[in-house]
Amino acid sequence: MPDMGRSSSGTLQCGSGGYMDMWGRARRGSTLGALGPRDRHIAPSREMRRRRSMELHLLIHLGKMGPGKISDAGGQSSVRSVKTALTSLHFVDTNILPSLYLYAINMAPSLQVTIDPTTVPSQTTEPAITKSTKSSNGVPSSPYPTGLSARLAARDNTYTTSTSGLAPTYLQANLLILPSRYAPDFRLLCARNPVPCPLLAESAAVGDWSGLKSWIEGVEDGSVAAEFDVRRDAPRYMVYRDGKLIKFECPDVMEEWTEDHVAFLIGCSYSFESALTSGGLAPRHTVMNRNVPMYRTTVPLCPAGAFTGSTYVVSMRPYPRHLIESTRTITRPYTATHGEPIAWGWSALRTLGISSIDSPEWGDAPLTLDGRKLSEVEGDEENVPVFWACGVTPQEAVMRAGLEGVVMGHAPGHMVVLDARDWDVVKKEE
Amino acid sequence: MPDMGRSSSGTLQCGSGGYMDMWGRARRGSTLGALGPRDRHIAPSREMRRRRSMELHLLIHLGKMGPGKISDAGGQSSVRSVKTALTSLHFVDTNILPSLYLYAINMAPSLQVTIDPTTVPSQTTEPAITKSTKSSNGVPSSPYPTGLSARLAARDNTYTTSTSGLAPTYLQANLLILPSRYAPDFRLLCARNPVPCPLLAESAAVGDWSGLKSWIEGVEDGSVAAEFDVRRDAPRYMVYRDGKLIKFECPDVMEEWTEDHVAFLIGCSYSFESALTSGGLAPRHTVMNRNVPMYRTTVPLCPAGAFTGSTYVVSMRPYPRHLIESTRTITRPYTATHGEPIAWGWSALRTLGISSIDSPEWGDAPLTLDGRKLSEVEGDEENVPVFWACGVTPQEAVMRAGLEGVVMGHAPGHMVVLDARDWDVVKKEE
Repeated sequence: MPDMGRSSSGTLQCGSGGYMDMWGRARRGSTLGALGPRDRHIAPSREMRRRRSMELHLLIHLGKMGPGKISDAGGQSSVRSVKTALTSLHFVDTNILPSLYLYAINMAPSLQVTIDPTTVPSQTTEPAITKSTKSSNGVPSSPYPTGLSARLAARDNTYTTSTSGLAPTYLQANLLILPSRYAPDFRLLCARNPVPCPLLAESAAVGDWSGLKSWIEGVEDGSVAAEFDVRRDAPRYMVYRDGKLIKFECPDVMEEWTEDHVAFLIGCSYSFESALTSGGLAPRHTVMNRNVPMYRTTVPLCPAGAFTGSTYVVSMRPYPRHLIESTRTITRPYTATHGEPIAWGWSALRTLGISSIDSPEWGDAPLTLDGRKLSEVEGDEENVPVFWACGVTPQEAVMRAGLEGVVMGHAPGHMVVLDARDWDVVKKEE
Repeated sequence: MPDMGRSSSGTLQCGSGGYMDMWGRARRGSTLGALGPRDRHIAPSREMRRRRSMELHLLIHLGKMGPGKISDAGGQSSVRSVKTALTSLHFVDTNILPSLYLYAINMAPSLQVTIDPTTVPSQTTEPAITKSTKSSNGVPSSPYPTGLSARLAARDNTYTTSTSGLAPTYLQANLLILPSRYAPDFRLLCARNPVPCPLLAESAAVGDWSGLKSWIEGVEDGSVAAEFDVRRDAPRYMVYRDGKLIKFECPDVMEEWTEDHVAFLIGCSYSFESALTSGGLAPRHTVMNRNVPMYRTTVPLCPAGAFTGSTYVVSMRPYPRHLIESTRTITRPYTATHGEPIAWGWSALRTLGISSIDSPEWGDAPLTLDGRKLSEVEGDEENVPVFWACGVTPQEAVMRAGLEGVVMGHAPGHMVVLDARDWDVVKKEE
């Protein structure tokens, strides 16, 4: 499968290498600022990249054939091709990749994968927009500085993109909405697998789209997210019926939410990433302005009722060997957002059943600081892989469970921003 | 390694086959009552078997050489040989095997393994003693019917053997006592791995040998075990210093307990085994009067501070395929005592990294109802392996962590009996 993917995207690269090369380098140049004159393009704005990814999405959806066709075989090979090709192209906002990937999975095996490069502009001079910037006093500022302001902006569709960097220090959460008959099993799945599935809160009652019951120790029910509307407060949603994606990145789920639904909010790694950065251990992908690589492992989850057969998904951040204990110490107290790493060292690839460090299932491939593939330095002491449990795990578990009825979630990267703060999930020593 | 073990025990069997054969069959005959006249010996009493196992222990300890020598090589091969040989011999109380095994691990690599079969009597006519019998009205009776009575008997050394079947419906707990500096990490290990390490209670304060803090939802601190003395209330203890066993099945830890120790009580599977039996799904090993087989797996625990590099230990109970969902349903609510199975099916052997179903690391090898090795029916639908997480997991984690100072625990099978009841750990649906 990987060979098919590489081969297909290779063909694509040959046919349209000019702009791809420029886009790829332009992006690196804009973040590291250490490349030659030809590379000094300004990165496309997030909105531009988003628009292009949507065009790609539409092309895939319509199944148009064109010069950039990747594969016309159905099933996993196509899915792999889409992902590999999009990652290689570098022109798509990689925050969108998981959505496209999920979409592709749901389309298989009837998928017709087509990319027409003539629809993709080769460059732009628009500056990149960042949502959180340093003000003159060095404190992060944001157009939506609080959880509530971010939710209200998402609710009225003023804000519709990735929440990465939004409302600094406010907890962000993965969202899963299930028919009530699956709620006890899902709650149990989280209880049995608290490291990959840290349950922060859930609907106060079946069908209650506003009230929340807190599962965060020391945080009252009313302090998780006040004036909440789970149907509208994520910037984008995904909707599935009987396991098939029926709505992709829709702005709300007003139509789909019923009196029989229960929402679950699950911790994500933004909290401990901030802590690592504050501790002088900024994760590699943030330094290089990439997305964290995420891998499916062979480590089984403890099953719970309807949720069987799933495995851990992990995120990876490379660190020098001598700093690993510090990363463990810094992230350990974040028990509600995955806590300390679950594995580290090059041998962990084998333990976790990860076949290639260069081929994450989600996010961007990890690189050395000078831009080489991480596999090129395999075994060294400066880029030792460190793996944390990842909030994609419960999403995978839900997708694999073959649930009947309507299931909803946030679109990847488009999290729910809470009122609770990063420090609310830090475990105090007893 | 396994080949060495089998070869060694094979040699031993040849040299002393007469009594082994009789002992092995006598034991099965006494419980199933379906074998021929030659098999109708009465099983040795638990005390007799215990005495013999202690003789074996002493022989191993003294390193005497004799006609029954298993292996004189140091390290794991010897450990394996001891275990395989003892299991094959059938004359040792298998409740003691884990102790011997731990002991052997601690002696390696200087171990000189020797068994002199002339010291082991070939038969006895003493009747087996059972601690819990059916009274005339069918309700289990016991000389120690409550948790407190069992603890008081253990405290004054009236009761010194395995607690299996003691004080029916009263929760029994694994005990681990650690230097206080490891307590936060161990607490975190349990929180991150609640299925194999279900923490029921811990010392109310560092150095407090009586008071307990309850971690069982709905059970008050004072209701876990009243008038408790953690230094004396298990029938037998094991004591380790700097990772080496220094006391084997001692009656108390009055000398070793210090103002710096913290005790942890961890759930065990007796509760859900009772529930399975009540539900008409009596575990195979209880029907055949054997010990549950336990296996070390390759599934990693989520590490926590000092506790790294450990894996799940699982117990296995075979069931017909069509009953597996029932075993899941019955054990699911027992969240504080491992809950529902973590894996099932013949393919689970691969998932869990178990190389041979016939060679559990602890307990007795599983059998079909007609006494064949389970591997002989591999793939069938009547003896499908079902695996639950096992309370040996945290003991393994502690042993592997290389802790400094004095660590204590109950001797395997010699649990702490609590005041809390089986039904106190049953999770109520929310």
